[in-house]
Amino acid sequence: MNKPRHAPQIHFPVVDDVLQVGGIPLNRLAQRVGRTPFFAYDRDLCTQRVRDLRAQLPQGVLLHYSIKANPMPALVHHMAGLVDGLDVASGGELKTALDAGMAPARISFAGPAKQEDELAQAVAAGVCVNVESERELIALARIGDAFGIAPRIALRVNPDFELKSSGMKMGGGAKPFGIDAEEVPRVLRLAGTLNVDFQGFHIFAGSQSLRADAIIDAQARSIALALRLAEAAPVPVRQVNIGGGFGIPYFPGEERLDVAPIAARLAPEVESLTAALPQARLALELGRYLVGECGVYVARVVDRKVSRGEVFLVTDGGMHHHLAASGNLGQVIRKNYPVAVGNRMAAVDSGPASVTGPLCTPLDILADRMELAHAQVGDLVVVFQSGAYGPTASPGAFLGHPAPLEVLV
Amino acid sequence: MNKPRHAPQIHFPVVDDVLQVGGIPLNRLAQRVGRTPFFAYDRDLCTQRVRDLRAQLPQGVLLHYSIKANPMPALVHHMAGLVDGLDVASGGELKTALDAGMAPARISFAGPAKQEDELAQAVAAGVCVNVESERELIALARIGDAFGIAPRIALRVNPDFELKSSGMKMGGGAKPFGIDAEEVPRVLRLAGTLNVDFQGFHIFAGSQSLRADAIIDAQARSIALALRLAEAAPVPVRQVNIGGGFGIPYFPGEERLDVAPIAARLAPEVESLTAALPQARLALELGRYLVGECGVYVARVVDRKVSRGEVFLVTDGGMHHHLAASGNLGQVIRKNYPVAVGNRMAAVDSGPASVTGPLCTPLDILADRMELAHAQVGDLVVVFQSGAYGPTASPGAFLGHPAPLEVLV
Repeated sequence: MNKPRHAPQIHFPVVDDVLQVGGIPLNRLAQRVGRTPFFAYDRDLCTQRVRDLRAQLPQGVLLHYSIKANPMPALVHHMAGLVDGLDVASGGELKTALDAGMAPARISFAGPAKQEDELAQAVAAGVCVNVESERELIALARIGDAFGIAPRIALRVNPDFELKSSGMKMGGGAKPFGIDAEEVPRVLRLAGTLNVDFQGFHIFAGSQSLRADAIIDAQARSIALALRLAEAAPVPVRQVNIGGGFGIPYFPGEERLDVAPIAARLAPEVESLTAALPQARLALELGRYLVGECGVYVARVVDRKVSRGEVFLVTDGGMHHHLAASGNLGQVIRKNYPVAVGNRMAAVDSGPASVTGPLCTPLDILADRMELAHAQVGDLVVVFQSGAYGPTASPGAFLGHPAPLEVLV
Repeated sequence: MNKPRHAPQIHFPVVDDVLQVGGIPLNRLAQRVGRTPFFAYDRDLCTQRVRDLRAQLPQGVLLHYSIKANPMPALVHHMAGLVDGLDVASGGELKTALDAGMAPARISFAGPAKQEDELAQAVAAGVCVNVESERELIALARIGDAFGIAPRIALRVNPDFELKSSGMKMGGGAKPFGIDAEEVPRVLRLAGTLNVDFQGFHIFAGSQSLRADAIIDAQARSIALALRLAEAAPVPVRQVNIGGGFGIPYFPGEERLDVAPIAARLAPEVESLTAALPQARLALELGRYLVGECGVYVARVVDRKVSRGEVFLVTDGGMHHHLAASGNLGQVIRKNYPVAVGNRMAAVDSGPASVTGPLCTPLDILADRMELAHAQVGDLVVVFQSGAYGPTASPGAFLGHPAPLEVLV
């Protein structure tokens, strides 16, 4: 039986054994950055990713970037020029999105526990708030009255189905997110009595799915649900955000998502949506899928140890910068991210080695007994698929080590 | 069958239904702090914890605080006045320990991937470096020669046994930590040829054990190993640090560790150590055990939602501040930390409720269907056992929310 392997690395070229990021050899890039560890995001790969996806999606579908996946300001600025909207999840992310120059009307703000000051910021900025509860709707209307603004709102719906086989289920069953679908008509009636500018619905069934059929199913159900809920809307629906759910392969045996069948099935769905709701635009909200494959995490080998027959590449990078790669962000059974020695890409695997970090805990591991090139002190270990949920999703202050640098190249 | 319960909360008194932290009613403390969420550490509880432990430990045993458990500067300063030494794990923690006024000779520095600049800092400061590899020993001697200082060193040993039933195994088998016990005599011979000031050994078998018998076993083996290794030491051994391993109860069914049998069995061990190595002092290095039960995490209920029959207390706090309580720091199966509604302590449980946070992810959960008092918007949810591995072990920047405040009261 063949051992499951990682999906092949197809994004970053190799020249003379050395990985190229943003067209720069990795060791030169490390010199330019000045210290390790760092995250490097490839600008052209992000651009290409958005272009490839748009080329497949039906005409008229809006593409949003969910900045929680990677809120690095330079990257958000770059993405803002490529997509139709930005989605934010906090007052902090709202600032990042506005700083990036995105028009407020093309920013939406979701989050289950928005604070009073965050709601006020959002109303003042004129962005669309995805309302998570009746309480939030009333608070928004109150703030709008005080500010003399009719707040832009959409209702975030907790659907009565979920995205099957997804990494994170965001809908279906009892959830803290959004308003249960069956309660939405009542909340819409309330919205009709308030001075708010109703835009439409935000329906998010789950994320990180690699199964086109599951995504097709969730999209069809989301659109059907939006059409049903639209009957109770106080004004014509102008926006239906059906979230994302598009995954990227992280672990051995996982394959890249095929977007073609999703796009093909979405086209008639968009037509029926537009036929029923002529003013409505369909939006896809993607984070990880747009940037996740465009970034790498780079750490330097500080020590090469052999302990009782096992090889450990002890690096300056680890779980404090890249919690997901260490296996501690929502994984039940730890699996390896794709990892390589970035300055020895052509080398034949020299046998299993583990890549560990500077923390005094066995949780601090980037690769567990992987086949890797024979690395030496000073070599650069690369963790692929690191463009999303890297530094901001990691305990950066753990054990007092410096934060990683981030560059967009 | 009785459902397993959390160990009773015995540290924080309740007056008129309200939890008291540092002698202050929780709602008054929240007003004083100015915003939620926050961590509050009780100064007197820390003092009492150290006193209680010292009263049981054999005469002459040194007690060290491992600041990785909680590096809040005010807390470290407080602990520095109570313990015999501080243990640090990075250049950043070294600064904190020195700032707290601890004498350099009573600071030790461990960490598997110490950087060249960290080693230089440590040599310049005169602290004891727990050497993790031959390479590190050579680097230290080189830095010492350059600075005209004989660096204080101890060898960190990867023992040939582990702490059984511990939360984190730090020794035994192949490990990136320390020098395999069987390699130590060779490294000691090398140390004898270098201009270094050899102090002794650091032997750390594991952490977070609640079984006295397992700790007794690991301590006896650690001391026996130190005695064996001391035969190859270039100069008389002056320090034997046998780590910690003392756990605190987090989850239902776990009971507090009984230190009395550990202390009783340690007394003759110390005697035999001192008989064989008259200059040697035994040190225990504890972090979580000293401060973990002395702190709480406090978040405010922002929304109370009922979704398809289940109650969600949506709070402003969550996994971005308290990763361990969310179940995402080394747990395989998520279990609840002890949680209560801090301003309704006397209330009868009103039925199961989940406590969730502001993040758009199902990972953001502080309590999963626990029996809790009937909470309202504005109430204060308290997570106990939160004095260690809180903010620094959490992804504080996740989704752009503000960092938690920390107070020592």
